[in-house]
Amino acid sequence: MSGGISVGLDLGGTKTDAVALDASGQVRGHLRLSTRPGTDGVLATIRQAMSQLQESTGDDLASIGVGIPGQISADGSEVRYAVNLGLSSLDLGGRLAREFSVPVRVENDVKAAARGVAALRGGSTETLAYLNLGTGVAAGIVVEGTLWRGAGGVAGEIGHLSIDPSGPECRCGQRGCIEAFAGGGSLARRWGAAAPSAVRGIITAAEDGDELAQRLRSDLAFGTAAAVRLLVLAADVPTVVLGGGVSHIGESLVHDVRSALRAAAESSQFLRSLELQDRVELLGAGSPAASLGAALVGMPEGRDEEAVVGVAAGPLREDDR
Amino acid sequence: MSGGISVGLDLGGTKTDAVALDASGQVRGHLRLSTRPGTDGVLATIRQAMSQLQESTGDDLASIGVGIPGQISADGSEVRYAVNLGLSSLDLGGRLAREFSVPVRVENDVKAAARGVAALRGGSTETLAYLNLGTGVAAGIVVEGTLWRGAGGVAGEIGHLSIDPSGPECRCGQRGCIEAFAGGGSLARRWGAAAPSAVRGIITAAEDGDELAQRLRSDLAFGTAAAVRLLVLAADVPTVVLGGGVSHIGESLVHDVRSALRAAAESSQFLRSLELQDRVELLGAGSPAASLGAALVGMPEGRDEEAVVGVAAGPLREDDR
Repeated sequence: MSGGISVGLDLGGTKTDAVALDASGQVRGHLRLSTRPGTDGVLATIRQAMSQLQESTGDDLASIGVGIPGQISADGSEVRYAVNLGLSSLDLGGRLAREFSVPVRVENDVKAAARGVAALRGGSTETLAYLNLGTGVAAGIVVEGTLWRGAGGVAGEIGHLSIDPSGPECRCGQRGCIEAFAGGGSLARRWGAAAPSAVRGIITAAEDGDELAQRLRSDLAFGTAAAVRLLVLAADVPTVVLGGGVSHIGESLVHDVRSALRAAAESSQFLRSLELQDRVELLGAGSPAASLGAALVGMPEGRDEEAVVGVAAGPLREDDR
Repeated sequence: MSGGISVGLDLGGTKTDAVALDASGQVRGHLRLSTRPGTDGVLATIRQAMSQLQESTGDDLASIGVGIPGQISADGSEVRYAVNLGLSSLDLGGRLAREFSVPVRVENDVKAAARGVAALRGGSTETLAYLNLGTGVAAGIVVEGTLWRGAGGVAGEIGHLSIDPSGPECRCGQRGCIEAFAGGGSLARRWGAAAPSAVRGIITAAEDGDELAQRLRSDLAFGTAAAVRLLVLAADVPTVVLGGGVSHIGESLVHDVRSALRAAAESSQFLRSLELQDRVELLGAGSPAASLGAALVGMPEGRDEEAVVGVAAGPLREDDR
């Protein structure tokens, strides 16, 4: 297969995942690195990943796609407010395009992951929402295989919609945002523990009968169920896939969210008819969706359509990492 | 201009608007009738409108589009739950196609109106949400001129999303739905007056210092602002057009909603950056958007693209009725 490799990078606050796809969507290499913060750190992280992938595949480079937690300019080049990476503003696309002399596209990490989830599930015609429960909460919507950015690239940014004016305070200044109920950062703060382990700790403590933990577990389900309802009733997606760090608690989250959806629909024939609980699915903890999605986002139009078929049929699955 | 006329019918609970467009989108006739309820009444109302329009235009019939307040099957034929018209289930599209021997498409009235609003504003490339504040609350989303139905035709049905678990009871059985705050039916019930005049009465009484009226006015703005935020953050539409009976109170609604949007965004840099208040617009009380949209929805693919250009440039405007 000619045409070189397309690299996808998912830059997280602590780890960076990278994958190299050939033009048919087959995985030619993948790796995980620690992310270094700040402009120089981020660029050094990307350079290291690029060099290792190019060395191991021995093929020419065709394109680069980057998923990054921040606001991205409409042309897919400039990053703003990537607070977790210590970046306030950086023309990352321009920098990488000059350095590597290939097309580069930068995308918000949740949107890129949504593209990857859709590719892994259904190839080029999948419609779904990917709901990322990380430190914050946001969603990416894919309609018939195409990422839906909206007029200003904020489509799916539902974390700061309030669902309870008397709810917990949100870091954004409002009260009762979906993120205040279901975001890992908010849950950790309310539980009084460090974020990475907090949610597992809450679930264990809730099972042991701790009242605060039970309230937080119930809030997580309440906020996630509201997000699912909202995505279905606004966009009518057939499937909402849950991912992100908070979702790594696994099936107990899916169980709680389905119960919350069923309970809220009990009194409403209309809501019941939507069978919301059957639309919720879980992305596995080790899924390569985010870096795969970044690689697809980075491909020039046309090339991604061929690759996405290979991704859907390919061997790289949740445990293949 | 050859090709016959395309009729659009907007069937409301009390009135039916009908319009006849030629293939270039020029209005060849329009009229308003009282709607008769039930299967026989609805069919008789449509027959009367068809006969008057065909008589006045003297042209062949090319297609029929119907906007109707109910759930519509994916093929645009069967109507369910059109409670206000006394219909529980009717294959309206099939009946009309057999009777008039032309293509027929039935669509939810709010979705058809959204298509008409987009056509009147921008022709074939407009992206917007149309938020209908009638007895109930629902929205229709148009993306680059195309109505977005979603997987099961419920995209935009945001009226029964709860934004306050302690909010007013909704007729759907939940509490604090957007519709419970901002729907004309709920406002009238809480104010204790008949629906058509209730909202104007509430605004007048609020200005006179009545406390219940002030609370209801504030709830209307709260619910509508939440719907606007939700539509922008889920779908990132550049514009949300307010219409429906409740919106006929006019500029005071727009003023209140903009204030509510500004107040909620005060603490949040992200929300402020979206300038939500500038995205809200008002559809005039006499707008022909709903019947025009129905006519466009009813046209076979291709024909509507030509017509929409004429609609955008045409003489039929809000006061031309």
